[in-house]
Amino acid sequence: MPAIGHKIWAVAEGYIPPETEKKSREMTSHETLCILNAGDEDAQIDITVYFADREPVGPYKVKCAARRTLHLRFNDFTDPRPVPVNTDFSSVIASNVPIVVQHTRLDSRQEALALLSTIAYPVT
Amino acid sequence: MPAIGHKIWAVAEGYIPPETEKKSREMTSHETLCILNAGDEDAQIDITVYFADREPVGPYKVKCAARRTLHLRFNDFTDPRPVPVNTDFSSVIASNVPIVVQHTRLDSRQEALALLSTIAYPVT
Amino acid sequence: MPAIGHKIWAVAEGYIPPETEKKSREMTSHETLCILNAGDEDAQIDITVYFADREPVGPYKVKCAARRTLHLRFNDFTDPRPVPVNTDFSSVIASNVPIVVQHTRLDSRQEALALLSTIAYPVT
Amino acid sequence: MPAIGHKIWAVAEGYIPPETEKKSREMTSHETLCILNAGDEDAQIDITVYFADREPVGPYKVKCAARRTLHLRFNDFTDPRPVPVNTDFSSVIASNVPIVVQHTRLDSRQEALALLSTIAYPVT
Repeated sequence: MPAIGHKIWAVAEGYIPPETEKKSREMTSHETLCILNAGDEDAQIDITVYFADREPVGPYKVKCAARRTLHLRFNDFTDPRPVPVNTDFSSVIASNVPIVVQHTRLDSRQEALALLSTIAYPVT
Repeated sequence: MPAIGHKIWAVAEGYIPPETEKKSREMTSHETLCILNAGDEDAQIDITVYFADREPVGPYKVKCAARRTLHLRFNDFTDPRPVPVNTDFSSVIASNVPIVVQHTRLDSRQEALALLSTIAYPVT
Repeated sequence: MPAIGHKIWAVAEGYIPPETEKKSREMTSHETLCILNAGDEDAQIDITVYFADREPVGPYKVKCAARRTLHLRFNDFTDPRPVPVNTDFSSVIASNVPIVVQHTRLDSRQEALALLSTIAYPVT
Repeated sequence: MPAIGHKIWAVAEGYIPPETEKKSREMTSHETLCILNAGDEDAQIDITVYFADREPVGPYKVKCAARRTLHLRFNDFTDPRPVPVNTDFSSVIASNVPIVVQHTRLDSRQEALALLSTIAYPVT
């Protein structure tokens, strides 16, 4: 089995819908990076978030263990600071080992939820 | 016509929504791998499923005949064991001949269904 | 400006939802290939449709003029024969000049419509 | 960190749903190009829009500053002229420096919104 993935990925779309009512965690609007580390070494991952009108924020540091997946919500980011809702952003994901990244949003602002997903852009 | 596709693909996103009511097969929430084998040789395919907090499970073995498509639901996997619902996962799809893989979800937890789809990540 | 696109593309996902009521053309469920021919020569395009349990059908022949887009619904295919609804399929799109292909579905079986889209897989 | 992205991108799908009622800006149907310029030089971007039955229109000129994202709605384009609603189109995005482009639609014609997104096609 070859190494699976790239070390740097980019996602140009990013947006956390503002939430109006309290919902279960599954049904709360969320913006997600789905990360696969199919290799045998833990991945140390730095995520930088870009905005329309201010300097980038980060790195947000996460670990995806060897042979594991990590579905990471921007909603949950706290350090160095939370990602604001109702704000356009992009992200760059940099890992020390090859990973695969997919971007998914669940929007449940209205009673009928909506979904989007795309493979991220593999940089190098 | 050249060979169409790659032999190894990865899908970082994976999630089977928990179902609350009985529905028709078409309208039941499902997580799908759409596979195209446009070549003249049957494809023997091994699928490995990765989780957030336990070792990968697989290979799930499927065949996609020559010049055929196979729309495969993770919901239907049984051997070596069913894929749990309401659980984050990723998958790696390895074939002996070139194939094309696309990932689609239909989420019908609510009355209004939602859809997502993306080309998978071609590894090699 | 370089030539834009590939000559052969594949889309592993394909499904035309069965329609229950009469709707406007925009709101009728449809499975679409969006084709861009940004070049200065008309594109002659052959589309082959693959199924789960029978030989492929085609080629369906279409033209996308120079510097034009063509949003093509599988629902509208008639020659050599219509694409059946409620049936899994895949497609291969072969052009004599470079084009770009994106796959979109609008599902309006329920009152709340659902959408999916992905870049197709560039073969060569 | 390497340069992130490509200088030319294409999006074969494009469609602005016709709007029937007045809504907030967030909830109005829109067709969006999400652009990331992760580099240290401002991006000067020319967008050309292709149609089914007439010559392309453009370039629409936009700037995405260094280390910024720009989520750009076709709905907002005015110069050289607005993009018509309820009309199929495609687009080519050409920048003087590497950028990343993702295509997203929010369709809110019906009470329940629908979303689609895909990475654009990197040309060169």
